[in-house]
Amino acid sequence: MTRQLKLGAFLMAGGHHVAAWRHPEAPADAGLDFSHYKRLAQIAEAAKFDALFVADSIAAPRDDIASRMARSAYFEPLTLLSALSAVTERIGLIATATTSYNEPYHVARKFASLDHLSGGRAGWNLVTSDNAAEAQNFGREQHISHAERYSRAREFHQVVTGLWDSWEDDAFVRDKISGAYYDPAKLHVLNHQGEHFRVKGPLNVARSPQGQPVIVQAGSSGVGRDLAAQTAEVVFTAQTSLANAQAFYADLKGRLSQYCRHQDSLKIMPGIFVVVGATEAQAQEKFQTFQRLVEPEVGVALLGRMLGNFDLSQFPLDGPLPDLPLTESGQQSRQKLLTELAGEENLSLAELGRKIAGGRGHYTLVGTAVQIADQMQAWFEQGAADGFNVLVPHLPAGLEDFANEVIPELQRRGLFRTEYEGRTLRENLGLTRPANSFTRQPHSSTDQQDIAQ
Amino acid sequence: MTRQLKLGAFLMAGGHHVAAWRHPEAPADAGLDFSHYKRLAQIAEAAKFDALFVADSIAAPRDDIASRMARSAYFEPLTLLSALSAVTERIGLIATATTSYNEPYHVARKFASLDHLSGGRAGWNLVTSDNAAEAQNFGREQHISHAERYSRAREFHQVVTGLWDSWEDDAFVRDKISGAYYDPAKLHVLNHQGEHFRVKGPLNVARSPQGQPVIVQAGSSGVGRDLAAQTAEVVFTAQTSLANAQAFYADLKGRLSQYCRHQDSLKIMPGIFVVVGATEAQAQEKFQTFQRLVEPEVGVALLGRMLGNFDLSQFPLDGPLPDLPLTESGQQSRQKLLTELAGEENLSLAELGRKIAGGRGHYTLVGTAVQIADQMQAWFEQGAADGFNVLVPHLPAGLEDFANEVIPELQRRGLFRTEYEGRTLRENLGLTRPANSFTRQPHSSTDQQDIAQ
Repeated sequence: MTRQLKLGAFLMAGGHHVAAWRHPEAPADAGLDFSHYKRLAQIAEAAKFDALFVADSIAAPRDDIASRMARSAYFEPLTLLSALSAVTERIGLIATATTSYNEPYHVARKFASLDHLSGGRAGWNLVTSDNAAEAQNFGREQHISHAERYSRAREFHQVVTGLWDSWEDDAFVRDKISGAYYDPAKLHVLNHQGEHFRVKGPLNVARSPQGQPVIVQAGSSGVGRDLAAQTAEVVFTAQTSLANAQAFYADLKGRLSQYCRHQDSLKIMPGIFVVVGATEAQAQEKFQTFQRLVEPEVGVALLGRMLGNFDLSQFPLDGPLPDLPLTESGQQSRQKLLTELAGEENLSLAELGRKIAGGRGHYTLVGTAVQIADQMQAWFEQGAADGFNVLVPHLPAGLEDFANEVIPELQRRGLFRTEYEGRTLRENLGLTRPANSFTRQPHSSTDQQDIAQ
Repeated sequence: MTRQLKLGAFLMAGGHHVAAWRHPEAPADAGLDFSHYKRLAQIAEAAKFDALFVADSIAAPRDDIASRMARSAYFEPLTLLSALSAVTERIGLIATATTSYNEPYHVARKFASLDHLSGGRAGWNLVTSDNAAEAQNFGREQHISHAERYSRAREFHQVVTGLWDSWEDDAFVRDKISGAYYDPAKLHVLNHQGEHFRVKGPLNVARSPQGQPVIVQAGSSGVGRDLAAQTAEVVFTAQTSLANAQAFYADLKGRLSQYCRHQDSLKIMPGIFVVVGATEAQAQEKFQTFQRLVEPEVGVALLGRMLGNFDLSQFPLDGPLPDLPLTESGQQSRQKLLTELAGEENLSLAELGRKIAGGRGHYTLVGTAVQIADQMQAWFEQGAADGFNVLVPHLPAGLEDFANEVIPELQRRGLFRTEYEGRTLRENLGLTRPANSFTRQPHSSTDQQDIAQ
């Protein structure tokens, strides 16, 4: 079968553009409007997207400028996606949950439950927490250091996946006559004793339709890439050029072999921020209607957060991006990327803030459906992407534009499905169903099966 | 308006009877079948139940007999009720979440999110955890002591309700022209620093439709009743006789005044285990079809768990209930109740096990719709109950029986609604919407408003 693109619909309240909520066509209260999300899910499913994706933070921003941004009130991802599971049938449901301020038993259980609720459509975006505001909601004054949070994340993943394998697929025999509900020989108690966690098990949820929900990650630092190479099945990433994306793709795929994993067992999906128009000029004008709504102070505040939770309000708006220390308190790779961008294009603080206000560092595509499909195809065919996580300026309109204009163009080129291949997220992504780690033979692991495909 | 009964539909996989899963009419795999729960929710909503109620444990039982009971694999309550919120419109959604092994920020956020998703139908059954199996899934060898877990529960409640009030109801102005998304003067940072928790806030969810989700509790010890008198709006309880129920009702309502609370601000809803038949004989025969399916060892194991996680397998099945120490590791009030029951009726261990196999200590009503309504009416009118939490032997059939037979009889007597009074769970339960604690005037508290009603 021909290789095709995988597509995620990255949902964010009224849209990804920081000024989306001020746009006349966008709902300002979308973050807590279930009917809005239901509509988004149904548009994305009709367009055959692989999955919905929901990001998360476990704190509200507390700086002064926060009151001018639509980022303080929205649904918790697992409750939202559980509700959406009841009004969709085929689309995947990927929720973010941090490993820094959660307990693995809860996370394992909620995602397993969502996988059952949805008939095998759950994905877990495993992240670490990088800001003090989150730490302070969980009894800590400072966030955990970068090294410590990755050490915790690695062990957290180990516990969660171990709990998911508590029961063999056929453990529950439910024999009404004999009275045997499950076969005790097919129950596996994890008994995890590690540096960060002690978790006995078993999970009180049967093994889920996908065996295990799909593991998604977005870390881009060296240690983040290593964790992804070892454990992730989908990686979201922000890349600002084809060349950078190719380098990232080659590097990450290159790391798979040390974990005996096949190239196809990890899908790399850069984010793309897309504005579609009937003509290029119309698309540009559409984009500018959002850009004009960005208050300079808001753009700079967003920039400060993306650089590592810096307060940039003390620096002149028309001056350059000041030198900032590489900090533990941010996405290190994001910080490097934006610093380079400011230098290359000689942008003022306000200009850089406005520039990232839409796609927040993701590759920005403004043009006709053909132009956008051309670039997606180039990235896909030239070793930069297995698919994309699609961000649009405003919702639902931007998603409708993408579904109505870009998807048919991709389908005409044979680059995207016209029907779902399967019932589960794994089947649609082309990922194998993992064998149970408690029953896997020492010399015929899932990973080796992957290689043998 | 005439006082009417409040009714909860207590959902539990294929039914409450321990042998329900073995019954030919009950599905054996109901615990992880969303279509089953969707049907239950729709039956209960059509019958105008106030709420669905889902219990919880954050561990699977690990003893040998567990493999003969249907208690090891089921949906996590918050994901399940979120999914059900999307396929129902009026019925309340009460999920259990323990204060012993959770973080208040997560709990506050998930219930606020569910309240928004459902348009104001969320309730939180606040419990403490009483068994070592749960502790061992969260890094502890032993469960927390009774006193300690109530101290933690009290502070947990304080943090959660404080976070729910992070934003005033009209904080989000969302003014597209001026660019003001919220009014900073209407944001309140909790800054909680207590014995068990340090939580900064604010919550990243707006104040929810009900102001705060409804607080439900089921603790019956002295300290449990005090916490309920101070903080609960609904109390579920297991009572084995009218006299006991009256005593409990009088005691708990009597404790309200010390917290300046009105009698109507707390609804007491004993559990009732109901088997309906066209005749009393038919109902008894129906009940016996379940009782005959109880293996003696299973009934005794269930009994041991209810008494405080005791292993009773060493004692003769036909001997008496052995003397057992009152232990930290159980529901103390439940333990007392069952010990008395065994003594009064001179039951063997196997007989007592079988006796509690259906209603698990809840009052058992086996008879015609008229007989059942008679007893419900007596409890309601004689100071024993404001309503009931309804348990049935098997699902969905038992719930259909109750909806088709008992509900119309209660409606004929004017004891139960024929249409929902409101859109939110609070409105249907007749509970006031709490004022925001950050803006409440010192001398005009919600509680005092309650008294002035």
